[in-house]
Amino acid sequence: MREALVAAAFRLFLERGYEETTVDDIVALAGVGRRSFFRYFPSKEDVVFPDHERCLADMTAFLAASPADVEPVRRVCDAARLVLRMYAENPSFSVQRYRLTKRVPGLRAYELSVVWRYERALAAYLRDRFAGRPDGTLRADVIAAAVVAAHNNALRAWLRSDGVDDAGAAVDHALGYVQSAFGAGLPAPPPAPAVPDAEDVVVVVTRRDAPLWRVVQELESALGRA
Amino acid sequence: MREALVAAAFRLFLERGYEETTVDDIVALAGVGRRSFFRYFPSKEDVVFPDHERCLADMTAFLAASPADVEPVRRVCDAARLVLRMYAENPSFSVQRYRLTKRVPGLRAYELSVVWRYERALAAYLRDRFAGRPDGTLRADVIAAAVVAAHNNALRAWLRSDGVDDAGAAVDHALGYVQSAFGAGLPAPPPAPAVPDAEDVVVVVTRRDAPLWRVVQELESALGRA
Repeated sequence: MREALVAAAFRLFLERGYEETTVDDIVALAGVGRRSFFRYFPSKEDVVFPDHERCLADMTAFLAASPADVEPVRRVCDAARLVLRMYAENPSFSVQRYRLTKRVPGLRAYELSVVWRYERALAAYLRDRFAGRPDGTLRADVIAAAVVAAHNNALRAWLRSDGVDDAGAAVDHALGYVQSAFGAGLPAPPPAPAVPDAEDVVVVVTRRDAPLWRVVQELESALGRA
Repeated sequence: MREALVAAAFRLFLERGYEETTVDDIVALAGVGRRSFFRYFPSKEDVVFPDHERCLADMTAFLAASPADVEPVRRVCDAARLVLRMYAENPSFSVQRYRLTKRVPGLRAYELSVVWRYERALAAYLRDRFAGRPDGTLRADVIAAAVVAAHNNALRAWLRSDGVDDAGAAVDHALGYVQSAFGAGLPAPPPAPAVPDAEDVVVVVTRRDAPLWRVVQELESALGRA
């Protein structure tokens, strides 16, 4: 029933346009009553995004079930991947919806409010993990926003490719950028061994006026993390 | 006239509530006709945020007038400060609006769309500056989102303090965090001198398993930039 309503709605949105389609049109095509529609969807906008509530609930549950020793930036990146998975489960539907959302300002506003809820879910988890640390809420808010922006940059590129490119690889790459930027935002890892082997020592020589990012590049490659 | 309409609207919003106040109530209190209201404001929501259009235009002009050699992350941070300045110009009005916006979902949605437009203005400038670089649009989108999140984290803290705290210092601190995180996202600075003096050489010795952020801390202090 729910799937039939979504299918009927999208057929009409694409044939006639979103604004020109009423809930009555949708229920007539699906062969059900108005009350059935509103049992599943509070409004016409909600039928365009039928899976976000479930995905938000999944994300919240995933974050709540985080092991205490998991690295928090990695955890929110993994949580963001749940959204990608939802889109990638049904590429042609996701691409159709993307085109529709771009054309209809009301749907764009709806989407912004959904994105905001994902961002707040990630930020709430990070605020909890960073509680008591200097700038804990600042770091949490900035990292959550960066994760969402990186995810959406890769997701939009995939949608513009008509769902043909490798969405997973693009999102991994984008989230990797955020993880590298916020390495310094992480809580201290477990202490390193007290007496290092000679093998484990790296010497970097740099000019005092070298730009810091260039030095970090050298370091990453010396440490074998580039 | 415009200011009188805003003042009348806020008096009624605070006395009766936002939803309970009509445009007719506002124009009656201000002593003008409905047509005057709509000459200044497309809708009742717009009277709540009377200065965002001007501020968006100021931000766009500021970014368009950027010198070619300005460091781009610093430039978008300075652009974000224009928003803070607008709020700080009139603390009591900003605090009243903050309380109102928190209570009315429609205004919250409106605010999200405004925030999104600021973020896109910053991202458009960065995309242009990063054009042709690897991951240029990804970096632009992530940095724009991080700048907006940091600005808003400090702005909200100031609004919650009833406009009493030092808004400028809080925003500077928040934006400084973003600038430090995205140092590696900057375009290459002008080339350094080819033959460094011995004085200008820094040697850092680290364990291979040292966390990168800890090494960067050491480096920053060795380079005299901490």
